[in-house]
Amino acid sequence: MTNTQAQQKQPAGKNARTAITPTREENFPEWFQNVIKAADLAENSPVRGCMVIKPYGYAIWEHIQRALDDKIKEVDVQNAYFPLLIPLSFISREAEHVEGFAKECAVVTHHRLEKGPNGGLIPSPSAELEEPFIVRPTSETIIGDSMSKWVQSYRDLPLKLNQWANVMRWEMRPRLFLRTSEFLWQEGHNAFATAEEAHEDAMKMLGVYNEVYEDFLAISGFQGEKTADERFPGAINTYTIEGMMQDGKALQLCTSHDLGQNFSKSFSIQFQGVDGQQHHAHTTSWGFTTRSIGALLMSHSDDDGLVLPPKIAPYHVAIIPIVKDDGTAVFDHCKQLAARLKKQGIRVHLDMTDARSSDKMWSAIKRGIPLRVEIGQREMDEGKLSHVRRDLGKDSKAVVGVDEFCSNVQSILDQMQTDMLEKSREFRKKNIFDVKSIAELGEFFKSEKQGLCRMDVSLMGVEYDALKKELSLTSRCLPFEDEGRKVLVGKSY
Amino acid sequence: MTNTQAQQKQPAGKNARTAITPTREENFPEWFQNVIKAADLAENSPVRGCMVIKPYGYAIWEHIQRALDDKIKEVDVQNAYFPLLIPLSFISREAEHVEGFAKECAVVTHHRLEKGPNGGLIPSPSAELEEPFIVRPTSETIIGDSMSKWVQSYRDLPLKLNQWANVMRWEMRPRLFLRTSEFLWQEGHNAFATAEEAHEDAMKMLGVYNEVYEDFLAISGFQGEKTADERFPGAINTYTIEGMMQDGKALQLCTSHDLGQNFSKSFSIQFQGVDGQQHHAHTTSWGFTTRSIGALLMSHSDDDGLVLPPKIAPYHVAIIPIVKDDGTAVFDHCKQLAARLKKQGIRVHLDMTDARSSDKMWSAIKRGIPLRVEIGQREMDEGKLSHVRRDLGKDSKAVVGVDEFCSNVQSILDQMQTDMLEKSREFRKKNIFDVKSIAELGEFFKSEKQGLCRMDVSLMGVEYDALKKELSLTSRCLPFEDEGRKVLVGKSY
Repeated sequence: MTNTQAQQKQPAGKNARTAITPTREENFPEWFQNVIKAADLAENSPVRGCMVIKPYGYAIWEHIQRALDDKIKEVDVQNAYFPLLIPLSFISREAEHVEGFAKECAVVTHHRLEKGPNGGLIPSPSAELEEPFIVRPTSETIIGDSMSKWVQSYRDLPLKLNQWANVMRWEMRPRLFLRTSEFLWQEGHNAFATAEEAHEDAMKMLGVYNEVYEDFLAISGFQGEKTADERFPGAINTYTIEGMMQDGKALQLCTSHDLGQNFSKSFSIQFQGVDGQQHHAHTTSWGFTTRSIGALLMSHSDDDGLVLPPKIAPYHVAIIPIVKDDGTAVFDHCKQLAARLKKQGIRVHLDMTDARSSDKMWSAIKRGIPLRVEIGQREMDEGKLSHVRRDLGKDSKAVVGVDEFCSNVQSILDQMQTDMLEKSREFRKKNIFDVKSIAELGEFFKSEKQGLCRMDVSLMGVEYDALKKELSLTSRCLPFEDEGRKVLVGKSY
Repeated sequence: MTNTQAQQKQPAGKNARTAITPTREENFPEWFQNVIKAADLAENSPVRGCMVIKPYGYAIWEHIQRALDDKIKEVDVQNAYFPLLIPLSFISREAEHVEGFAKECAVVTHHRLEKGPNGGLIPSPSAELEEPFIVRPTSETIIGDSMSKWVQSYRDLPLKLNQWANVMRWEMRPRLFLRTSEFLWQEGHNAFATAEEAHEDAMKMLGVYNEVYEDFLAISGFQGEKTADERFPGAINTYTIEGMMQDGKALQLCTSHDLGQNFSKSFSIQFQGVDGQQHHAHTTSWGFTTRSIGALLMSHSDDDGLVLPPKIAPYHVAIIPIVKDDGTAVFDHCKQLAARLKKQGIRVHLDMTDARSSDKMWSAIKRGIPLRVEIGQREMDEGKLSHVRRDLGKDSKAVVGVDEFCSNVQSILDQMQTDMLEKSREFRKKNIFDVKSIAELGEFFKSEKQGLCRMDVSLMGVEYDALKKELSLTSRCLPFEDEGRKVLVGKSY
């Protein structure tokens, strides 16, 4: 047994069996917060409910963004940017929309500050806005207003727009990445001449999201249709991907909405058809948020902290020089290896700090760097290195030649990416339980069991509604794989 | 003379000599608005002072962003994200900062809406915030608050952070891209152990901006130091690049601030030094906005519309099939050429609409696509095409073989990029006038002359201040090239 294996048995926390305490089993929500903290991803800000996304967390978001943005452009959607503020009258125009969104939002009432009687700043009474604005909770209304000007003829359709933006929905019980008053997202807004095209588009964009979740975040979710009570306010149909977190709860990973003609009628998005007549367009909207990072954490991380799929990891490989006293030679050797890997397109983190080797190792583990490479004097002399996959831990440790490692590093990363997705898929399938009655459903969620239940849609009725309320359950979706005959039920974030 | 040359003589507008009316000479501000409109870059929104950045305008911003973001990362700055809202108490903390920024901003006073007495929505009286927030006009304060937690020891320095974000400064006289209540930017915030490092950093980031302006936007500006009255509120020194627009007015292209210890003292950004003592950090901040697109327009565009430097153009090449009746063969030929060029990494716009050939040509001109390629039946039969550089117009027209064009297209684009920068540099130098007295300065700006004046800093005094006020002039900067002995004076945007 080498030194480094011995060290791995002693996590950073004193007397702890794991790097993160409590463990997932002991207290999942607290474990989640501590994984975020240990990986230095984000923290609460002095603005209640709003988070600061720290550099390491933001780098993950940038990789997700790049992957999704490329795919959005591949399907001929164009990026644009619309105002942050939405006139109050706009939000009121679509009846269901206002019910769903007007509740909790940031309201801008003044456009100037002045010195108040106590010397502090106050909103200037002379600068009160005639019509207040709200900070966008979503942009169907303001984008609908632009679309009404841009769409005149069938030749202007389809019109497919996307924006990367911040949005606000005032949160009373905020939670990092999962529920924050401000979050980052992309929101797509497409307009079509026919109902069929809009329906197809809403499904297509859900497919795009699913590709990003599977191919980049290594998360396999349930794709399906939302039940009427869970639809986006103003949509005629909402499609979703529901993820299964490690505690068996569901997390809505993204949504894609078929808005029918609801918004086109409220905002006069009309076009002259081939038939010479005026028609209302059919629109869709679809969004993917920084919540995806929460999903990533709760899907893959373990009791030693973050585990990242290589494709969206800020660093693919952590190189840790194991040195005693003067380690100049080992450091130089590691620098050369880092340079060589970078040339191959590998994102490398070379830890040159003066921290202890074991601390460096635990830092790489807690930050979820997919591959950890350790090189000491002996390994250097032998032209070798040891590497460990983050998801498999020390059992995956291998000592190989440097050349061999450089030749194989990409395929090791690819294998890890594939394995993580497979694990996610298996976990999801293993934790879904078929129930035959509302009584069975109640039994399941009153027990210690974790997971989601699936039952026939015909069981949805008064009894079901009462149980949902009693146990804080929700209908997550009607999975496509069951062709609308089943509903997925469970606890959720 | 070919068909296409004949067509170029008749711009789109009826009876117009140029595609854009009025021309630059006739009415520069109106020309500017019409260039934006003709190129479909942006438009005013229903939110007073806020713009909608349309897809073509946003694509330019994305190319600029990518170029700048790469360079920012090269100098080891990390991206992160901080809250949109800033507590009122934060903005009040730095005395000069509050004077400069508290004036015109969006104030959030409530966090909920409810149905009012008339049925419409009103800010809910029960949801008035104890402390109002403002929508960030800039983020020194909220980032300073985070820095105070993240910086403990000299080991935590330098700390170099950047965010890509939207900001708001309420504008009474908005103008697309130049002055809008909401705009997009990046804001960098760095902290150092010593004054020297902070000073060097402020200079270095100005250099990064200058590289982006020269190498990507093909704009050569005056780099220099702001006079005390033009400094950022709270800075001990502000560095700037001042561009010279085609009407001889200056436009501030970006700024980089040495904040000294002003913000670190207001926000307690303190660290334990190597000496074991507590010290306040020295900070910088630096910003680059969507205003750069305004600079791009006013630097390069002409009376036929937008002219874009290839490196940040959404499309490098416009391919225009010139067809009569059934053009299937020509269309297919053009599609093949487009595919071939795309493989070479060229961004191609193939105009397959059913518009008239001359309209397609004018659309490419007004949108500033660097190279226009035209192919009709005859060119196709001969294996040739004609191409025209947007900046040089029809005099640059060349008819060459398709293979030759594909081999040379990148070098034609590179040459255009170089030529545009050279032209910008020459224009700037040609329109700078040395004056020896305040009287001479007054004479210049009371005349019809266009450009900026340069004079000895010793002339700055009461008389100068009076003249500045009378003629709406400002000190633009003390150019580095004059080593602080001269001041640049002029009208500005």
